[in-house]
This record gives sequence, C-alpha cells and structure tokens, in this order.
Amino acid sequence: MKTATSIIDTLSMLLPAEDYSTDREHLDRMSGDSADDVAIGAPLAIVYPRTTQQVSTIVRAAAAAKVPLVPQGARSGLVGGANATDGALLLNLTRMDAIREISVADQTVTCEAGVNTKRLADAVAEHGLFYPPDPGSVSLSTIGGNVATNAGGMQCLKYGTTGRFVRAMTVVTGTGEVLELGHATAKGVAGLDLAALFVGSEGTLGIVTEVTLALLPAPGPLMGAYGVFVDMDQALEAANAIVASPFGPAALEVLDGQIIRAINELNREEVLPGDAEALLIVQSDTIDRAEADIAAFAEIFSTFGATKVVTATEPQAVSDIMNLRRQLHPATRRAYGSVLNEDIAVPRGRMRELIAGVSGIAEELGVPIATGGHVGDGNLHPLIGFDPRDPSSRALANKAFERVMALAAELGGTITGEHGVGILKRSVVGAELSPEVRAAQKAIKAVFDPAGILNPGKKL
Amino acid sequence: MKTATSIIDTLSMLLPAEDYSTDREHLDRMSGDSADDVAIGAPLAIVYPRTTQQVSTIVRAAAAAKVPLVPQGARSGLVGGANATDGALLLNLTRMDAIREISVADQTVTCEAGVNTKRLADAVAEHGLFYPPDPGSVSLSTIGGNVATNAGGMQCLKYGTTGRFVRAMTVVTGTGEVLELGHATAKGVAGLDLAALFVGSEGTLGIVTEVTLALLPAPGPLMGAYGVFVDMDQALEAANAIVASPFGPAALEVLDGQIIRAINELNREEVLPGDAEALLIVQSDTIDRAEADIAAFAEIFSTFGATKVVTATEPQAVSDIMNLRRQLHPATRRAYGSVLNEDIAVPRGRMRELIAGVSGIAEELGVPIATGGHVGDGNLHPLIGFDPRDPSSRALANKAFERVMALAAELGGTITGEHGVGILKRSVVGAELSPEVRAAQKAIKAVFDPAGILNPGKKL
Repeated sequence: MKTATSIIDTLSMLLPAEDYSTDREHLDRMSGDSADDVAIGAPLAIVYPRTTQQVSTIVRAAAAAKVPLVPQGARSGLVGGANATDGALLLNLTRMDAIREISVADQTVTCEAGVNTKRLADAVAEHGLFYPPDPGSVSLSTIGGNVATNAGGMQCLKYGTTGRFVRAMTVVTGTGEVLELGHATAKGVAGLDLAALFVGSEGTLGIVTEVTLALLPAPGPLMGAYGVFVDMDQALEAANAIVASPFGPAALEVLDGQIIRAINELNREEVLPGDAEALLIVQSDTIDRAEADIAAFAEIFSTFGATKVVTATEPQAVSDIMNLRRQLHPATRRAYGSVLNEDIAVPRGRMRELIAGVSGIAEELGVPIATGGHVGDGNLHPLIGFDPRDPSSRALANKAFERVMALAAELGGTITGEHGVGILKRSVVGAELSPEVRAAQKAIKAVFDPAGILNPGKKL
Repeated sequence: MKTATSIIDTLSMLLPAEDYSTDREHLDRMSGDSADDVAIGAPLAIVYPRTTQQVSTIVRAAAAAKVPLVPQGARSGLVGGANATDGALLLNLTRMDAIREISVADQTVTCEAGVNTKRLADAVAEHGLFYPPDPGSVSLSTIGGNVATNAGGMQCLKYGTTGRFVRAMTVVTGTGEVLELGHATAKGVAGLDLAALFVGSEGTLGIVTEVTLALLPAPGPLMGAYGVFVDMDQALEAANAIVASPFGPAALEVLDGQIIRAINELNREEVLPGDAEALLIVQSDTIDRAEADIAAFAEIFSTFGATKVVTATEPQAVSDIMNLRRQLHPATRRAYGSVLNEDIAVPRGRMRELIAGVSGIAEELGVPIATGGHVGDGNLHPLIGFDPRDPSSRALANKAFERVMALAAELGGTITGEHGVGILKRSVVGAELSPEVRAAQKAIKAVFDPAGILNPGKKL
C-alpha cells in the first residue's frame, strides 16, 4: 500500500481536508454511477478539485504514483463509466460548478464542467437563450458528463446531441497538461478538431474542466400530442411520415404494448387503451407554428390508423403527455423486477426489422423485452426484464443483451446511441468497430494518456 | 531519381495508362489549387484511382517508396492545400464520383469522395431532400474536399458546416489501411469520434474515399432582402438584431463601402448608392414563413437606419440580390489588381472591433482592405488589395495579412473560419494554437501516417 499512502499524503498537501476523502462509507456512496448491473471497484480516495490547476496537479501526482483516475460528474450515467475501479482515485468535478459567462451577443455560455445541466439551461433561458440537449438525466447530470458522453435526449431529434453545441473546452490530459481546444467562434478550422475528438470520449483522453457552448434563441412553448395504435407497424409508418414532413417535431417517441400495459399497472388504471401495441408521442416548440404542426402530426396519426389521438397546447396537458414517456423505466422496473436498460440505434429505415428482431429474441429466449425510445432518430431503449434474485434469469437477460447488440450491428446500427460504452459494453464493441479502428483509438489514447491512468477499463 | 522511377514503374503495373500521368504539361495544369499566391512544387506524377482498394494500393506503394502524396478533389481550395509539393504524387479523386445510395427513409446519401457538391445537392433534391452546405465553390468542389476542409458557405449560419452532415466515411490511412469511421445512424457513441477528427484534417490523416451524409427535408423557396447603410456600425447592429430574432435567416452577409464602390465600377453604373458604407443581404428558406421573415428583416434594416431596402420573393429578383454578393471577388480583383482573400472569424460580439481594427491596419500600412462575408456567424473575408507586378506592394499586403491574422487571434477569434490552413497559413497557426496543442496534433498525425507521407507541409 505504499502507492496508496503516498498519493493520499500528496493529496493532503495539495488540498484542504474538505476537498478529499478516504472515508470508506463516503467512498462507497460515491463509487457507482446509475448503471444497475456493472462492477464497482474499491477506490483509494475521492478528490473534489476547485480549479483546472488543481486538476492538473492531481493528475500529475497520480501519474507519478501510477494511480488510475476515474473522472466523475453527477454519476447519472448508465454504463458504469464513472464507476470506481480498484485502487483508483475518484476525481469528482461537481464542485467546479461556476457559470462563468453568458454572452447574449455571441449566443454562448462558458461554464465549469460540474455545472448541473438543468441549472445551466435555466440560467441561459433567463437571457432569452436556449440550450437544447435534454438527456433523461438533465436535472441530475453535469455539463462535463454530458460532453464526456455526447449526451442525447428527446430534443436531439430536432437540435442535435451535446457535441453539436460544444465550441471550446479546457481539458487536462493524462500527463497533467492543460489544453485549450476548439474555438469560441461559430466556425473555425485552424487545427485538427480535437474538441470533437474529446466529445464522447468518456474520460479516457483527458478531463474536461471548462466548456464554451453554443446557444440558440429561445423557442416557443412546447405543445404535444399522442396517438395510440393497435399495430406497431402502423405507428412506425406514422413516425416515418412525421420525420419526412418539412416541419420537424422537437421530439418523437415510441412506447410498445408491453410498456403501455406496465404503465396502466403502475397507475392502477387504464390511462392508455389496454389493447394498444404502440404509443407515439410528438412535440413541437416552433414559434407561431407549434399548434398547426401538432394538429398536422395528429392528422398523420389518424391517417395511419391511430385508435385514439390526444393533442395538448397548454403546459399542464403537455406535461401530462410527456409524463407517460417518463414512466417508461419505473413502469417496466415494477413489471419485471429489474431491467437492463438498452440503448441501440439503427438507420431509420431498419426500425421495423429491429423491433421485429427484438421481439424474436424475446420469444426465442423466453425473456421479456419491452421497447421504447427515440423512434424519430432510430435510437431505441429495449428494456430487458429479469428477476434480480434469480441468477438464471440474470444469465438469460445477459444472453438477450448480447443478441440485441449483435442485431443492432447486423442492421447497420450501433450498440450505443447515447449512453456510451463505459464498462457495460466494452465486451460488445467488437460487434461494431473493426480491430483496426480499435487499435487507432488506443494509439490516440496513448497520445493524451501515455501512462494509461485515465479511466482505464472503460470505453476503449 | 531511383525512387521516382520505381514508384512510376509500380503505378504502371497497378493502373491502366489512362489513370495516371507523368506528362509535364498535364502535371503543371493539375499542380495548383485556387489560391492566388502560394508555392506550387513539381510533382512526380498524378494518379486517378477508381476504387478505395486502388487508393490503398497506391498509398502502400508510396509509403514503401517514401514518396509523399497530395490528395486532391476539384482543386477549388484557397490555401494551397491541394498544391503539389516537389517530388510528390498527386492523388486525384475526381474519378471516384459515384453516388451510391440516396435513402429517403434514412434521409442520407452515400457517395464517393469525388462527387461534385452541386451534383450531389441536385441529386438528393430530386428525392425531396436537402444537402445544405454551400461553399462558394459549390459548383466546382467535391464532397471529399468539402469534408477535408469542413467547408462552410452562406447557409451554414442556419444549417451548420459540412461536418455537421457527416455521418460515416471510408478513409485510407498513410499505411494504406482502410478504416470505416463514424456510423450510419443519426446518433452513435460506440467509439472515439474519429470521423469528426478527419473532418477538416485537410488530407493529413488519411484519404477520404467514401462518405455517408445526413440530409434534411427540402426547405421552401429562397427569398431575400438587402439594406444599404451609410454607417457600418448601424449595419452591424441590424445584423445582431436579426441573429437574435427567433426566426433565423438562412444567410446573412455584409459588404463594406469599398466593395460597394468596386461593384458599381465593375457594372459601370451605380447599382448601389455610392455613398453607402455597408450592405446587408439576408435570405430565408423557411416554408410558409419566408415572406413574413424577409419582411421582418427588412423592417429591422429600416429600424437601424438603412437608407434603401429592397425585398425579393420571386426567384429572379432573389438571384439578382445574391448576385451582388457574388461580385465580391471579381469587383475587388478588378479594383485592386489582385487580392489576398482572407478568412477570419471572431465571436459575433467582437465584430465591430474586428472591422475597426482591419480599417486601422489598412490606414496605417496604406494598403487597401475591403471587407465582406458571413456577418451572421462572425466569419469575414477581408480582401487585401495589391499590385501583382509590384514586389513592394506584395510585401505590404503580406504584412497586412499577418496583422489581420494577429488581430483575429487577439479578439478571441480564428485565423481561418472555413478555408483551412493549407500552405498559406501554416506560418500563422501559432497565433491561435498553443505549442502543446500543435504537438498533440502531430502525435495524432503519426498514429495514422507514421511515415509522414500524407500532404506533408500542409495544415499542421
């Protein structure tokens, strides 16, 4: 334990006592992200740096002691990307949470990595500006974590994922070097686009400590609609027609019949028709157009055979509709005991094959799989049910997981649309990326992290 | 000349005679891009591969013979990025010009790198789809060149630059390895975003041979307006008000008083008021809104003091307005003899300081500098006039060039918004990028091109 002792001695010299901890109970509480079923190791300590300079100093100390570092934001990720590994130092950025500058003229915000995403969105909204990315964890997650995972969400159908809004960033590499990447301007091609490379790199190339994000003018109030279908194929055709229309929705989500019934059970009443096999939810936020767009989308629902269509223009009614979508996880968890929350994407034209293929896997293996998610951009979240107290049920769920990953890759899709690889999907990355691409990734990691101390055992 | 002989012998075994040439006249014609004043070397030969596999074979042969390669598209670039260097092999991709698949369901197109950009845009338009990037060279340039430079254009104010539309690509690295990068899906985070890294890398990391691009539903017909101002500051305030409005324009361009007078001279009549100091041109393509938006933008012009406002809703009238913008280069070339066509960007809020600073440099050095460009996204093209027959005039223009670059960097901006670095700006990259960032870039290049044969002497 010489290494452990020396790095902790070093921390005690570098940081005030309240900014690091070796308390086992505290460490246990901070060692896992929000993934259900991913290995969590025993870290040496946790540090809460306050400045980029402190991050650099900590990284240099860790590199010298060959102690691995696990960068953390709010630990709301779903693939174990922020999970402790044995003997690692947790580098938690939540105390670097300053919003440095909101520029109305430039439509940008510069902030530290630990800023809560919703807090940032609310702060810019006060200036009539709009930060669109809305991962499911928006009220928990941090901007740094969103950048590290290229977080998506419902509105990325219209606005794009986190990466599209990243202009510039400050990062600390695995040698403790501080790099300024990207550019504050709307356009810029002076160097290789290293900022884009760091987006979605899950803490394996460096630690993002500060970010400048592009913003948009505020949109109009959200309006919405849902349509209920007795046939999933009808719903998929309606979804395709909506995406192909010139007025794009702000969000377009699907829930299948199993989720619909799980929602009814959760609510102890038939909030949705019990014989439904698909629910489509659509939103619009376009100023002066949202009401007309929602009416047009509702018309498309009807044209493709929806048995029930509900539209909403007032905030409470809109929120009630979105609340159905928010019940996806609690309802399926309650129905199945526990779920593996999957995150695959396929080209939109293969969605029907994907959903049929997932049903086939469920039937063949006898595993319940409910499917819902971002149908508009082809990114679905199959939820593989299992009994957490039954190892054979767990094993079967894992088998279904592997089959679903292989199916997504076969259909020209990806094993992860927005959650990332973390620990959970390292074993299945090979289904999507060639050995040559993986070798190139490792060589790039070595450029920024020659000692391999940054989030080892994750992503790559 | 043993190397030269052996690589040409190899080419003659690999390729039919019509797919390579060592003819000096042909080589002279193909050795330069569209930059005015950048060194052009003497290449060994030019090859016109037809397949990715041929590109790979050629690269392997070049790597074995240690012969540098210069990838080329249509050679419409403005920084010498496609210029021959001494002893290099020109690798021209214009014969790889197949459009492989247009998918209406997925809203994507897959094509070879040598496809002409306008041809691609027209082809997808026939399917009701829209490829927005519109670099000034759109009717000449290739998609591969656009990807290699992350090409911009007027419409990237609303839609984003080329990179935003790149989903996946096939590249051949400097060792001849063929890599499939990115993903066909709308979202995907399985690996490091190597496709984003290759966007804008100017042929220094690999040769892009095939690309899958995202498309949008077709927009409405373009409408436009212009406003004439006797004061540049008024025009900048009007531009800021338009960008801040919730309905974004498809393009927002500025031309200064010198350009206005050069246009009048070119046309031998006063097409614009001769006492004007700024012209703003705005476009909208939003279905059902464009006419109202253009009226609102025209109103903003008037509010901020425009002395003349013209709106256009019919195609011919819209084209007449855009034709003013298209005269930027021919008019200033005619007025000054020759121009250095600059390409800097600053955060929008610093635009006024930029324009004042450029005027100051012009006055101090006694060099004519006209300024116009994409005011909406802060990307301007100062045009530094000089007499090409007078070496002292040329030297003064180069001095002004360096001062303008330094000014852009000082204002938190970039030395190149969309044209790239090529040969022209290698000497000034240091004004923007730290030595640490430049070292990281070189290390990344070495990952993909260990022998350093890909476009050496460019970009990095």
